[in-house]
Amino acid sequence: MDHLIEKTTQVKSVYKGKIIDLQIEEVELPNGGTSSREIVKHPGAVAVIAVTDDKKALMVRQYRKALEKTIVEIPAGKLEKGEDPLACAKRELLEETGYSCRQIEKVGSFYTSPGFADEIIHLYFSDSLTYEGEQQTDEDEFLDVLKLTMEDIRELTASEQIHDAKTMYAVMYLQLKYGR
Amino acid sequence: MDHLIEKTTQVKSVYKGKIIDLQIEEVELPNGGTSSREIVKHPGAVAVIAVTDDKKALMVRQYRKALEKTIVEIPAGKLEKGEDPLACAKRELLEETGYSCRQIEKVGSFYTSPGFADEIIHLYFSDSLTYEGEQQTDEDEFLDVLKLTMEDIRELTASEQIHDAKTMYAVMYLQLKYGR
Repeated sequence: MDHLIEKTTQVKSVYKGKIIDLQIEEVELPNGGTSSREIVKHPGAVAVIAVTDDKKALMVRQYRKALEKTIVEIPAGKLEKGEDPLACAKRELLEETGYSCRQIEKVGSFYTSPGFADEIIHLYFSDSLTYEGEQQTDEDEFLDVLKLTMEDIRELTASEQIHDAKTMYAVMYLQLKYGR
Repeated sequence: MDHLIEKTTQVKSVYKGKIIDLQIEEVELPNGGTSSREIVKHPGAVAVIAVTDDKKALMVRQYRKALEKTIVEIPAGKLEKGEDPLACAKRELLEETGYSCRQIEKVGSFYTSPGFADEIIHLYFSDSLTYEGEQQTDEDEFLDVLKLTMEDIRELTASEQIHDAKTMYAVMYLQLKYGR
């Protein structure tokens, strides 16, 4: 696959932010030509498909400024510097929903936007939850916790309130695991 | 859901690029506090789950500078300004793989990274393909076309060569449609 590789000849930092950085990389193309790539650097994230004892999926309703829209997503959050993804998954689940989990398993990982960003999401599943108390979100984070049946999930998907890649992946995962 | 909305008080453009723009939005939070949001603006994209007459999925192997890695993805591409997503899907499929499609249906759409980007992917499916000839990619785009069985797809997923959200969603879609 070496015939596809682009060699970096220069990296220019455009912006360093709270959550993302932006850099422009000048590259040498496989045919010897040149181009530039706009690349967003992100710390990576986790997300959790969490199912309660009464077989409802925990999700959160949250305003997403980038979309100017309130959507329903599975619990998720950014990795802190050096944080283990599994520990992060348990932490975000507890903070966002108030539930801890006794057992949790890795479903997989995926890059969200390989054309312009290095964000990776590590996805977990747990169906052994314990309610610990109220959510403890970040100071600039506001969300509603929802407990959803598959019927609720179908309706939220049809109305495009469930509308992001990780959550739509989670919905298919639940369909494959529990049937439609 | 009004209790979750963040009001924009100021927008600052940080970067305007070939593919993405970056802007910082100052917001008023639901509790009256303030914060800032780093937002990547993207024109949106399409992707196509394309299955040949001999039941193989068309995918492309491509170097992704953001990941510093070569991965295998379903055919996809950015929307041109004002372009209809369906027309874009047919165009990208033809350009990247050399196949046209007689019929094509919408699978759905999803935001890839709602925490920091407005990128949306419109996803299509076609299993009525005609080979028209060699791929015609952009001048800075290099990719190999692959025709994959479900067994190939399983191996590429296990080895994390298939490793992005839209393609992993497509793999689950194929599993639900054709069985494992």
